[in-house]
Amino acid sequence: MAKNLTRRDEDYSKWYNELVVKADMAENSGVRGCMVIKPYGFAIWEKMQAELDRMFKETGHQNAYFPLFIPKSYFSKEASHVDGFAKECAVVTHYRLKNDENGNGIVVDPEAKLEEELIVRPTSETIIWDTYRKWIQSYRDLPILVNQWANVVRWEMRTRLFLRTAEFLWQEGHTAHATEKEAIAEAEQMMHVYADFAENFMAVPVIKGLKTESERFAGALETYCIEALMQDGKALQAGTSHFLGQNFAKAFDVKYATKEGGQEYVWATSWGVSTRLMGALIMTHSDDNGLVLPPKLAPQQVVIVPIYRNDEQLEAISEVAKELQTQLRDKGIRVKYDDRDTQKPGWKFNQYELQGVPVRIAIGPKDLEKGTVELARRDTLEKQFVKREEVVAVVEGLMTEIQDNLYKKAVGYRAEHTTTVETYEEFKKVLNEKGGFVAAHWDGTAKTEEQVKNETKATIRCIPIDSDNEAGSCMVTGKPSKRRVLFAKAY
Amino acid sequence: MAKNLTRRDEDYSKWYNELVVKADMAENSGVRGCMVIKPYGFAIWEKMQAELDRMFKETGHQNAYFPLFIPKSYFSKEASHVDGFAKECAVVTHYRLKNDENGNGIVVDPEAKLEEELIVRPTSETIIWDTYRKWIQSYRDLPILVNQWANVVRWEMRTRLFLRTAEFLWQEGHTAHATEKEAIAEAEQMMHVYADFAENFMAVPVIKGLKTESERFAGALETYCIEALMQDGKALQAGTSHFLGQNFAKAFDVKYATKEGGQEYVWATSWGVSTRLMGALIMTHSDDNGLVLPPKLAPQQVVIVPIYRNDEQLEAISEVAKELQTQLRDKGIRVKYDDRDTQKPGWKFNQYELQGVPVRIAIGPKDLEKGTVELARRDTLEKQFVKREEVVAVVEGLMTEIQDNLYKKAVGYRAEHTTTVETYEEFKKVLNEKGGFVAAHWDGTAKTEEQVKNETKATIRCIPIDSDNEAGSCMVTGKPSKRRVLFAKAY
Repeated sequence: MAKNLTRRDEDYSKWYNELVVKADMAENSGVRGCMVIKPYGFAIWEKMQAELDRMFKETGHQNAYFPLFIPKSYFSKEASHVDGFAKECAVVTHYRLKNDENGNGIVVDPEAKLEEELIVRPTSETIIWDTYRKWIQSYRDLPILVNQWANVVRWEMRTRLFLRTAEFLWQEGHTAHATEKEAIAEAEQMMHVYADFAENFMAVPVIKGLKTESERFAGALETYCIEALMQDGKALQAGTSHFLGQNFAKAFDVKYATKEGGQEYVWATSWGVSTRLMGALIMTHSDDNGLVLPPKLAPQQVVIVPIYRNDEQLEAISEVAKELQTQLRDKGIRVKYDDRDTQKPGWKFNQYELQGVPVRIAIGPKDLEKGTVELARRDTLEKQFVKREEVVAVVEGLMTEIQDNLYKKAVGYRAEHTTTVETYEEFKKVLNEKGGFVAAHWDGTAKTEEQVKNETKATIRCIPIDSDNEAGSCMVTGKPSKRRVLFAKAY
Repeated sequence: MAKNLTRRDEDYSKWYNELVVKADMAENSGVRGCMVIKPYGFAIWEKMQAELDRMFKETGHQNAYFPLFIPKSYFSKEASHVDGFAKECAVVTHYRLKNDENGNGIVVDPEAKLEEELIVRPTSETIIWDTYRKWIQSYRDLPILVNQWANVVRWEMRTRLFLRTAEFLWQEGHTAHATEKEAIAEAEQMMHVYADFAENFMAVPVIKGLKTESERFAGALETYCIEALMQDGKALQAGTSHFLGQNFAKAFDVKYATKEGGQEYVWATSWGVSTRLMGALIMTHSDDNGLVLPPKLAPQQVVIVPIYRNDEQLEAISEVAKELQTQLRDKGIRVKYDDRDTQKPGWKFNQYELQGVPVRIAIGPKDLEKGTVELARRDTLEKQFVKREEVVAVVEGLMTEIQDNLYKKAVGYRAEHTTTVETYEEFKKVLNEKGGFVAAHWDGTAKTEEQVKNETKATIRCIPIDSDNEAGSCMVTGKPSKRRVLFAKAY
């Protein structure tokens, strides 16, 4: 069906941008690099938030809220952090505007200059650890398991809806622990929570692993991550969890009295996922007809469209449709009955296909006669006629089936696009011809990593934690390597 | 019990500030005027959010998200709006910091000056109506019923936790309609939604009414509001809903094609409540022992504390406590069993009283023998022994009883502190000696309103919509008045 949508094999990037806008998910705003998340896109994000929030709470975390602004000096306290975050950022320098005396409208009032500039948070470690100093005195105050849902700003020069925007929405967990072991366990736990969410809720398979030193979060001793593979063979980092050691505790002087009466610095983690997940969702499942949503995330799981020529027909169809809607809702299924007379059925079919509604039911006068409905699956585009009395059971089954099918399809794609190579020649060939993940031996040096990046644009996505050690030699330098790492070009 | 809390009759303002901090609700941050909302306070706010969000969706609204930053020029487009909002605000002027060549750490990079300054949103009408221009072409696109949960910044000079902070959290609804009538109906509907929420969820009685012209939102033709009365006799504006006419549609050129083929400007509303509601909640119900929470908003509705001398006792008590916890949870009641051995029972009692947990259950060895528990109500501070098999039913009943009792108590306080006066002398006397709402005749002029404000600090809180017309003469000028209005000193 014609969607006026660029095909993926024509121009994947263009397809993505068009899809995000046409499916009513997000659009660019009048503010450079900042997006507007439209109601349909936001409804999907809300579903993600609700499930993640549930998972965080189930693992003992509580939400809190910390200031949007961070005094400039806070960033200077943690040396590696300042280089990573305090440079490209939005800086508040004044707190007042005034009417211009020369009639140029409103201008910055030079008398309202802040003594110290405020940075719009790019991430909140510094302001939070400045707060934790007041919260933590004794081992009794630990652990602190706090999460924040917030907007953050990083001044990106090249932006793309959901994938890279100046302002984005995210959650950032910030935890404080008495021991190194506990903090590492927390950072690992959150990586597993993220992977669980991505796979079982978004139907996006991910590889769990560790970042190399050069790819770590600024201020972390270890960064755990989940990496997904998009349909164009590029990887996307879908979530990260950092073991921060005592870096921030030392920078902000956060100590606690141990049970034994000593004084120790506190151990920290931080972890986050963002609206970037929306990009991962779109680029894992969607097709040339538009968005494809896993049922667990679909704002509407089923849409019912009446096909009619006159009011009499509409009335008879509505009776059946509304009964069906009630029955499906009783099963916990989200159903919309779209009987708007301002749009034609064809327009509605097109729209719901574009917006990825998992199941579409059409009911016309002939269906009433036969006691059937027409049911269409968004994932396979298959249509079938289903007896009226079987619809509820069929739809219930499809909710699971579509969710599973999307996941399996994505796992299949990833398997086809994960290649093990031995030589650098082979590596470059695979990257060029096929893309995807490339498992190769690496000598463990930042120098080799940098060389590969410069020559091929591929980076080490992670050192997978679920793969076995396997001695070999670096594909570039021939030096010894204990295990393969995963390379890919990435978003 | 000694809470080290200032008594309300000693210094109400000091009591409030201490309570907010000691009950672990919020605290000041290192950033001037910005607060940290602590996990306990945030859990209450989350309950408010969840219920309001449900009510918004039930009335057909969807959530979306718009940029944090607004280009300066957007504010100039609506003349009255710019005076109200664009003056005291956080202004982003640069997008980069750099290392200072003279070794002063990081400084603003003068080369990274923005062409146009960005204002951190104090409210989002301008950026949203700039967006709606793209969303609205035809009558088919209307109404647009959108809400946003967001942080906003207004550069306040004197701040107080929850009541007035530079950054605060809120929701802002922004709707677009084809007709004036529809827009007015929407603005009125949202005032009723807010009142319903305040009364039935927060147990805070409110007066619904209209603001006078001088108290209206900058850019509104009519501002509907709900006004609550605090324990110190001062009023608090708890929510506002604005009928914006076509002001923003004209400023941002938002027209739609009518069914008949014409072009019309769109009609608008906006409405919001904020973390200020937390202040209203605290100052309506709490007492000298700390916070008092209505059960519907309490993160924990019941807390169970074991009283024990040894592990054997604890084990026996825990068995009963955990069974009780399960039974209460099955009834949908939020229960915490606090068996931490790092704190003594007295400390726990104190803490939960300070934090306003509606029901506290204590179980000791004697209770086990007798088959009872000790149950304490937070609102009345009454204690009773309840038979083990009756606890669930008693607690279930208390959830409703406490909620109702708090509401009735607040209604009673308000009735005692609402006075009808005829003369200005009487008016001043009541304000000084008793405070509260004062119902008086007013001549309808801004001049008289201003005079009263200057002489008494009282403002017209609203023209109540639920009171009857009653002709009289203005208490200040003697000029004719159609109905009484409500004056009060206010937060």
